[in-house]
Amino acid sequence: MNTPISKKINIQKVDKSRIDQVDFDKLVFGNVFSDHMFECDFKDGVWQNPTIKAYGPLTISPAAKVFHYGQAVFEGMKAFKDEEDKVWLFRPDQNAKRINKSAARLAIPEFPEDLFFEALTTLVSMDREWVRKGPGNSLYIRPFVFATQAGVGASPSTEYKFMILMSPAQAYYTGDIQVEIAEHYSRSANGGVGAAKAAGNYAAQFFPTNLARERGFQQIIWTDASTHEYLEEAGTMNVFFRVNDTLLTAPISDRILDGVTRKSVIDLAKRDNIAVEERRVLVSEIVEAAKNGSLKEIFGAGTAAVISPISAFSFQNKTYEIEKQEDSFAAKFKKELTDIQRNLSEDPFGWRFEVV
Amino acid sequence: MNTPISKKINIQKVDKSRIDQVDFDKLVFGNVFSDHMFECDFKDGVWQNPTIKAYGPLTISPAAKVFHYGQAVFEGMKAFKDEEDKVWLFRPDQNAKRINKSAARLAIPEFPEDLFFEALTTLVSMDREWVRKGPGNSLYIRPFVFATQAGVGASPSTEYKFMILMSPAQAYYTGDIQVEIAEHYSRSANGGVGAAKAAGNYAAQFFPTNLARERGFQQIIWTDASTHEYLEEAGTMNVFFRVNDTLLTAPISDRILDGVTRKSVIDLAKRDNIAVEERRVLVSEIVEAAKNGSLKEIFGAGTAAVISPISAFSFQNKTYEIEKQEDSFAAKFKKELTDIQRNLSEDPFGWRFEVV
Ligand SMILES: Cc1ncc(COP(=O)(O)O)c(C=O)c1O
Ligand SMILES: Cc1ncc(COP(=O)(O)O)c(C=O)c1O
Repeated sequence: MNTPISKKINIQKVDKSRIDQVDFDKLVFGNVFSDHMFECDFKDGVWQNPTIKAYGPLTISPAAKVFHYGQAVFEGMKAFKDEEDKVWLFRPDQNAKRINKSAARLAIPEFPEDLFFEALTTLVSMDREWVRKGPGNSLYIRPFVFATQAGVGASPSTEYKFMILMSPAQAYYTGDIQVEIAEHYSRSANGGVGAAKAAGNYAAQFFPTNLARERGFQQIIWTDASTHEYLEEAGTMNVFFRVNDTLLTAPISDRILDGVTRKSVIDLAKRDNIAVEERRVLVSEIVEAAKNGSLKEIFGAGTAAVISPISAFSFQNKTYEIEKQEDSFAAKFKKELTDIQRNLSEDPFGWRFEVV
Repeated sequence: MNTPISKKINIQKVDKSRIDQVDFDKLVFGNVFSDHMFECDFKDGVWQNPTIKAYGPLTISPAAKVFHYGQAVFEGMKAFKDEEDKVWLFRPDQNAKRINKSAARLAIPEFPEDLFFEALTTLVSMDREWVRKGPGNSLYIRPFVFATQAGVGASPSTEYKFMILMSPAQAYYTGDIQVEIAEHYSRSANGGVGAAKAAGNYAAQFFPTNLARERGFQQIIWTDASTHEYLEEAGTMNVFFRVNDTLLTAPISDRILDGVTRKSVIDLAKRDNIAVEERRVLVSEIVEAAKNGSLKEIFGAGTAAVISPISAFSFQNKTYEIEKQEDSFAAKFKKELTDIQRNLSEDPFGWRFEVV
């Protein structure tokens, strides 16, 4: 393994990898981190001092604005290794753009896309041993930015830190997911920050999700906060409903994350001549479809869980079970998507990006 | 200055105070911190190791959940010094309770109220030199809790840190505040976290507030996210409207912070035989009152700015100026409130709490 050369990034390679200490068959999602991390500071109006160094703790003021005012946004992406040991990213341009869209909404300065790519590819390349072959295995990549200026005045920070961490992940078998449809709590408001991958959006979901768990449901499908009549998305996945052979999914709005997996599923469906409707979907419509048997599938789509079939949903204290389909769309899209991601099929859309 | 004795708290007093380096006549709000800070960690299901030590940087994992999922809540309160050098807090029980209400909504474990008090009073007592006498001077106190567990799985943290920082503050003369009434962006959703002092609520307001500033308005009065027809609160203040001699203010809901200053103003108004209506207030009603001359005052109420008169508001691209009142309610409540806070008047409500 050579240290890649970067003209822009100061690279401090670890003396010895920690990889031998990791049991790759017993990974808990997001708990183990690779040897290196990237960091870059925003100060005096410029991003400066981009550095790759050993993964390890930070020193930060307890008055840093991230702790008080939550200025923090992130991304989630994955690297895959094919049978020839080539390493691939999936649509990384989408994440580079989306983190800046999120940042803008939180009054955080944008991070230069070229430096995002250089940091990402250099880091993945250095830690390529951490990307494991085989179905379900990946290296989860977490770019994020947060406010570091020390000060408890309620105004945007003048200083930030952009970082990338990487965590090896296994196929994340969640079992059958049963979900609750939100009737009281909500995830985001019109004119709010729901469309941003803002840190605060996630903390807001933990308590309602705990309540749902106590009732036996692993996740919540959020509805619009004004009426709770329209289906929106899950905590970390966009959601698709298959009614007969048509796919329905909520349109992108300022309340919903514009998911990369979601848009890829839509493109695959179109290619496969499956009808997709991006439109507001009424809860009542899905309840009706469940009752009359036209609701064939519900599945979530997101980077971490890829495609996640939902076997039952609850609404107004009734649980509706969804029968397993022989010709499952969820299974089909999961295979098509992961085959492209892992270089096991053609890539007609140009979604794969090789890290050399 | 003696080190107070605490049976519970490990106290590490600084060798030398930094107070001589501080120019108390040139304070920027929230930028200078007193000699000591309090910290206490939640681990293995219990709050442990409560410590007072020198204000200074923390060491924390970059994977700490606060950076990724925004689990963080805070409080804001003030200590005042009277002419006899006695130091007073204002309704600290309210903050001790509210931080736990906020914590519960964000799936953060509650902090024991008795330890909150012991930490608060011990810390203020140790740094009592930092509380300055004289009108407008105070020591701003910032208790806060944030998630420290290292892990990028989207679930509640198992570890947290509770801290208290303190920052000397001067009368914070903001000049005449002109506000914009929100017509597109919003602060919180029904069933969301608006009633919690959650870090993410503040970051969400920075971008829309920047836009308002560019148009010449310092703050936004938020409206309900569903219709934008009802007035709610400002970024860090609850808002009162005086129509003729009646005060109107939005009722507490899951979208609005239950402000200590707000409830104190309501109690003062009742005592003073001023009619107060806690009810939903239509934007159209206030616009109408501005047009027909019955709108006498608008003011914000919050710990940092105390009572903050608003001299103009903008709605649908029209700006409505509010004439200065001879018998200003804002000025009256400000004097009554600060007189109680600074031990310059009776305290019929039992709001003052002496720190010995
Ligand atoms: C709220 C939310 N919705 C949807 C998604 C799915 O987005 P993507 O497919 O880009 O991972 C995510 C992120 O993973 C998310 O956090
Ligand atoms: C959103 C919001 N509203 C209102 C207030 C006023 O509350 P208090 O009077 O308790 O300071 C604050 C806090 O200061 C706040 O952050």
